[in-house]
Amino acid sequence: MSVRNVDDVTLKPVPAGTDTQHQVLIGPGEAPSFALRRFVMQAGGGMPLHTNTVEHEQYVLRGRARVVIGSEEHEVSKGDVVFIPAGTPHSYDTLGDEPFEFLCAVPNGPDTIELVGC
Amino acid sequence: MSVRNVDDVTLKPVPAGTDTQHQVLIGPGEAPSFALRRFVMQAGGGMPLHTNTVEHEQYVLRGRARVVIGSEEHEVSKGDVVFIPAGTPHSYDTLGDEPFEFLCAVPNGPDTIELVGC
Repeated sequence: MSVRNVDDVTLKPVPAGTDTQHQVLIGPGEAPSFALRRFVMQAGGGMPLHTNTVEHEQYVLRGRARVVIGSEEHEVSKGDVVFIPAGTPHSYDTLGDEPFEFLCAVPNGPDTIELVGC
Repeated sequence: MSVRNVDDVTLKPVPAGTDTQHQVLIGPGEAPSFALRRFVMQAGGGMPLHTNTVEHEQYVLRGRARVVIGSEEHEVSKGDVVFIPAGTPHSYDTLGDEPFEFLCAVPNGPDTIELVGC
């Protein structure tokens, strides 16, 4: 692919999340180093505390959320940039009445998600 | 860093561009695999045809532009996802009256830019 629109890519539920979907905008089979995804959490949705084996580089497109990263807690909104190191526990809880949407880039390769405290 | 806002990061001119600035949102010293940058081109601005030694994964945040990628020409706008393989000639010319803004992720490591036809 060279160009595609975000609205033309299928959104799929994220099993570990609540009212959370994601879409793969540039997949690991399309680019050599890293993948680009978008996550959409409906108002009231989120992701519980978990770890991944790969780091996340994120950019908030819309909405607000409380994001826990290790021992820190942040309220994030449009234009915020979030870096989550590999292995660091993190969670998302939407705030307000509109969907929370963000881009999330991850390196290609295997990723294991583990819920914390389960 | 864990969280920072795009408006708190310095924008610097891109020497090869016209009315084009960029900012490093997550730098190669902060993340192990790839960097996240934002480019802002004022109306009338752009970048001439050039190559880079690294691939680009891009997401359009605002505005419109004509983007050439190899032998293809695309008009892109908000929500468009653009992949430019390493070594592929590409250029940007803004369209309309508002700034053209996009995120651009690149793998860490040396990158050489070469203008095409100069």
